[in-house]
Amino acid sequence: MSIKSIITIGRQYGSGGREIGEKLAKKLGIPFYDNKLLEIAAKESGINQEFFEANDEKPVNSLLYILSNTYSSDNLPFNHKLFLAQFEAVKKIASEGPCVIVGRCADYALRDNKNVVNVFIHAALDSRRERAVKLYDVPEKKADEVIIRIDKQRASYYNFYTCQKWGRVDNYDLALDSSLLGIDGAVELLEKYVEIKEKA
Amino acid sequence: MSIKSIITIGRQYGSGGREIGEKLAKKLGIPFYDNKLLEIAAKESGINQEFFEANDEKPVNSLLYILSNTYSSDNLPFNHKLFLAQFEAVKKIASEGPCVIVGRCADYALRDNKNVVNVFIHAALDSRRERAVKLYDVPEKKADEVIIRIDKQRASYYNFYTCQKWGRVDNYDLALDSSLLGIDGAVELLEKYVEIKEKA
Repeated sequence: MSIKSIITIGRQYGSGGREIGEKLAKKLGIPFYDNKLLEIAAKESGINQEFFEANDEKPVNSLLYILSNTYSSDNLPFNHKLFLAQFEAVKKIASEGPCVIVGRCADYALRDNKNVVNVFIHAALDSRRERAVKLYDVPEKKADEVIIRIDKQRASYYNFYTCQKWGRVDNYDLALDSSLLGIDGAVELLEKYVEIKEKA
Repeated sequence: MSIKSIITIGRQYGSGGREIGEKLAKKLGIPFYDNKLLEIAAKESGINQEFFEANDEKPVNSLLYILSNTYSSDNLPFNHKLFLAQFEAVKKIASEGPCVIVGRCADYALRDNKNVVNVFIHAALDSRRERAVKLYDVPEKKADEVIIRIDKQRASYYNFYTCQKWGRVDNYDLALDSSLLGIDGAVELLEKYVEIKEKA
């Protein structure tokens, strides 16, 4: 099947959104971007990649924000410069053809692009906890705390930059609970979605 | 395909959720319940069906609620009795086998049932406006007002009785924007969902 879609994936921590995106990209034969996006943003903007990694999808807390931001010559807070560089990297990648992009408000950056499919992956807490412990070496006792903290960070980052609400159905073309279908089931459904959408 | 799923559909006004549910039920060869649920609730509870129709998915506004409720002999506000009768009707229907149920907090009534698939259908405002005017004879100038009012009613009803948030991704196994796939495309995707879920 020849694909024209650019698929963006927002995801709860531990929902398997990244793995689903990676497998989907492989099945569709299109590139996959997760951290690689930061590499491109760094290269294009000339800002050191370490800054992107340290601030990746981190919230813009009002007090911390003021304290931690140094203003640059163009009067933009550094956090904003990092965001804008990622924003431009998302647009550049999308202009090159179909792909899968995970996180980083890619849905918002590409909101005027007709070929975009915006997906949100969530999952039951039990399943996210299991994933955090098994795959990310989070200590079992800390798992709930980590899940809540990272989701809060992602929501705060997304809500601040997009003026939309992370995890509201309205923002996404499709949202699904990966703990009910499994990773491969979710990939199969997304493949079907792209097929139906492209012939619609 | 032999189906065991009970599919509940929450929906924004004008999103085509009812039509999608009806077509899906026909394709899967299983019963479809929308207003018919009120008929069953009336029959089972002995309360006149007109009361169910007049209060159908209507909000429980705090002041109006107090003013409009007469307490019955068992000390339950009448609105609650209607809700509980519908709740029981949903459970009765589900115990009889696979089916599609639209609205009425059916997802919540069946939350302990492993065979349930909870779906939420939403759509872009333009498409909902068009549907309201064409199919429900809403005057064009009034369409936005009607859409906002009915969605508010449904949200308020759902949030009050379920302690969950109507339209939050976490409540649903699958949420989709019907204006992107079309009615038949949405039905096709839901069929695929049921197929994957039942083999998972």
